[in-house]
Amino acid sequence: MKRLLVANRGEIAVRIIRTAHEVGLETVLAASEPDRASLAAELSDYVSVIGPAQAGKSYLNSAAVIEALKASGADAVHPGYGFLSEDAEFARMVEAAGATWVGPSPDSIALMGNKAAARQAAKDAGVPVLVGSDGAVGPEDDVEAIAESIGYPLLIKASAGGGGRGIRIVESAEKLAGEIQLAVAEAGAAFGDPAVYLERFIDKARHVEVQILGDGVDVVHLFDRDCSLQRRQQKIVEETPAPNLPSHLRDQMLTAATDLGRRCRYRGAGTVEFLYDEARGEICFIEMNTRLQVEHPVTEMITGIDLVREQLRIAGGERLGYDQSAITRNGHAIEMRINAENPAQGFMPSPGTITEIRYPGGPGVRVDSGVVSGSAVSPYYDSLVAKVSVWHSDRPSAIARARRALSELRITGVDTTAVYLEAVLAHRAVADATHHTKFLEQSAEQLLQGTA
Amino acid sequence: MKRLLVANRGEIAVRIIRTAHEVGLETVLAASEPDRASLAAELSDYVSVIGPAQAGKSYLNSAAVIEALKASGADAVHPGYGFLSEDAEFARMVEAAGATWVGPSPDSIALMGNKAAARQAAKDAGVPVLVGSDGAVGPEDDVEAIAESIGYPLLIKASAGGGGRGIRIVESAEKLAGEIQLAVAEAGAAFGDPAVYLERFIDKARHVEVQILGDGVDVVHLFDRDCSLQRRQQKIVEETPAPNLPSHLRDQMLTAATDLGRRCRYRGAGTVEFLYDEARGEICFIEMNTRLQVEHPVTEMITGIDLVREQLRIAGGERLGYDQSAITRNGHAIEMRINAENPAQGFMPSPGTITEIRYPGGPGVRVDSGVVSGSAVSPYYDSLVAKVSVWHSDRPSAIARARRALSELRITGVDTTAVYLEAVLAHRAVADATHHTKFLEQSAEQLLQGTA
Repeated sequence: MKRLLVANRGEIAVRIIRTAHEVGLETVLAASEPDRASLAAELSDYVSVIGPAQAGKSYLNSAAVIEALKASGADAVHPGYGFLSEDAEFARMVEAAGATWVGPSPDSIALMGNKAAARQAAKDAGVPVLVGSDGAVGPEDDVEAIAESIGYPLLIKASAGGGGRGIRIVESAEKLAGEIQLAVAEAGAAFGDPAVYLERFIDKARHVEVQILGDGVDVVHLFDRDCSLQRRQQKIVEETPAPNLPSHLRDQMLTAATDLGRRCRYRGAGTVEFLYDEARGEICFIEMNTRLQVEHPVTEMITGIDLVREQLRIAGGERLGYDQSAITRNGHAIEMRINAENPAQGFMPSPGTITEIRYPGGPGVRVDSGVVSGSAVSPYYDSLVAKVSVWHSDRPSAIARARRALSELRITGVDTTAVYLEAVLAHRAVADATHHTKFLEQSAEQLLQGTA
Repeated sequence: MKRLLVANRGEIAVRIIRTAHEVGLETVLAASEPDRASLAAELSDYVSVIGPAQAGKSYLNSAAVIEALKASGADAVHPGYGFLSEDAEFARMVEAAGATWVGPSPDSIALMGNKAAARQAAKDAGVPVLVGSDGAVGPEDDVEAIAESIGYPLLIKASAGGGGRGIRIVESAEKLAGEIQLAVAEAGAAFGDPAVYLERFIDKARHVEVQILGDGVDVVHLFDRDCSLQRRQQKIVEETPAPNLPSHLRDQMLTAATDLGRRCRYRGAGTVEFLYDEARGEICFIEMNTRLQVEHPVTEMITGIDLVREQLRIAGGERLGYDQSAITRNGHAIEMRINAENPAQGFMPSPGTITEIRYPGGPGVRVDSGVVSGSAVSPYYDSLVAKVSVWHSDRPSAIARARRALSELRITGVDTTAVYLEAVLAHRAVADATHHTKFLEQSAEQLLQGTA
């Protein structure tokens, strides 16, 4: 591996280029036309323009990326996250072009991309999954027994529903039959399909996940992360280790993640996501992401392991070369995503030109960004402009450092979520780690005070 | 302790303010008139102007600083490094004003500020010192026996000399008597004082040092640093752990440093400096610095300990609260000093306005700086504008990361040593750790190629 095509943009392209250069690889950035002027393009050894701004014609255009791969003489492709990173077909195209795919096998990507298959793989590996009816319930099923095994409260979900629609909550067994009747009728009317299934209702769930690394034979974990601070399913603040997680559940989760990875003969970096049901004292598998995660820096900060370097090593055919006991964690790390959005206006994206940007520094602060003073924030892409990550010896100190770092950040020219993040980090629920995945939405009014 | 007066400027003032804010202290920056516009002033809660640009009238003006202390309502003073940080009299004035001095006792400062007393204190603590005649040699001394105990080659130094003048090297016993005669005659002629003393000659010395922390009773070390990459006694690149240092010498040095600290009932952060004589396989004490060191970030990176936080805790009367076994080191860290100087013009200072500055980022990179885009680099002060420190799991990786980080740095408006540092880090002697304190000067021509 000598020349790496970076098939992404923004902060993650910069991140990948950094480690590529450290290990002596040349880089080719596959960039959209406007991104020729980006920091990633400036830092890359070569730039290959793959199409216009619209992602569908550039970053999601697998044919154009493969063309850039062939034309540039690159011998490997790192897809970053998002875009084509979990497109098994694209991974196959890279390999068919004779280049190294920096990621898990296309089969692993395809398996985990199929929700039902991924759930089955988890069950097969003995990993607890979110309790439910395993498909639609019909007249032939003993619905009461299924419901009893799931436990109350539970959810009735329309099979054809989604995005929060077609969901009814059932508090107790007495109400089950009536609610199912209503749900079936509603689903038929709303979606043209009366099928419904049952799923456990978790009131205050935490989103926890495990970073794994595999070489196709050996699989290790790099501990857990908590990503419960979300807004509309978008993670905002992530940390490691997950706070207030009972140690037996943490151990169970770490073991489950590596078991799943071993069963799939996983190769590369991956993240196994779980819900932590604090009331029931349980964790359950949700899904697995077969690529580098946005929030990977916090894992790097507590383990000292460069995940991109490991990805490149493994893709190059190397074995892990260490076992679980060699991986230790130290301290606490928190990542804050700085988005170019206006919190006071419903987090409306705020594209434009960054007139000035000043990042925080000093002890325990890491900045990952794809923008500098003068950079354009494009309306065509994700609004993430920078990630500010901090490390300290313990969680309260890390929160204090995160707040200090935010206070130093200056971005002018576009609106950002920085002030909103300050309110989030100043909140008692975050200090006490009593937050959950709905916390930011439930506390929106309070958190948005002062951001106008 | 509620409000801390920061009696310094530039990057170290910013560094201190950062931790002060993290631990909930308000800060007052004692600033010279031009430094009212500095980043440190912007980050500080309050600014108290202590005088004009000239350091003698501001940062070295202890009366003005004490006045600022009293007027601002601050209850503690952090002196940083340089300026008044090792002025025992100033420390006494702070304490007499009823404020907390963030540093060792004035007596410790005074003791270590006296070279002869410090040498004696080290000897008393059983710490090896640079072998020499312990004062001038006269006709009554058995000079040959003293020389024999020092070993050849040795140096004859004029007691009234200094700055490299009045030094003769003696290769063997046969030449001793003749060289002493010449040295005495020369010293009398050059300095009006014929007194000379003998000292061991170390051909290729490495500068190594130990970071200690004491609470007046317990003393621990935070491992060692190598600062051998110097130009005219100014450290340029520092790293930890010291490479190619035999482990028994490292252990001896760490023990010696803590022994010295315990003997002095040392309170606060201090650095015990040694020379490592590779040819003889020995270390010897040179001096002790009774304040925070410029290169302290590398120690923070491998230990995870915030030295400024520890200084503040100890100054506030807290005990260390941990023992040596609780302090572990991990990986390798390197600091690079970015000076506003023109290497191609004899490292002439390059004051002016920084039109744009862009710092490196990403994994394992820490930036400590007192300047931002638009900052003035004053001709009145030290030319250090930023410190870029990197961490990685091992030394070769850390060097690769250091070079990557330097490649990202952009400073326009003033000349800097960045290109020179790239040449230093690319040099084989640095990769092999065969460098010594004279290496940069001996390799100057080679290192300066391409900086013009």
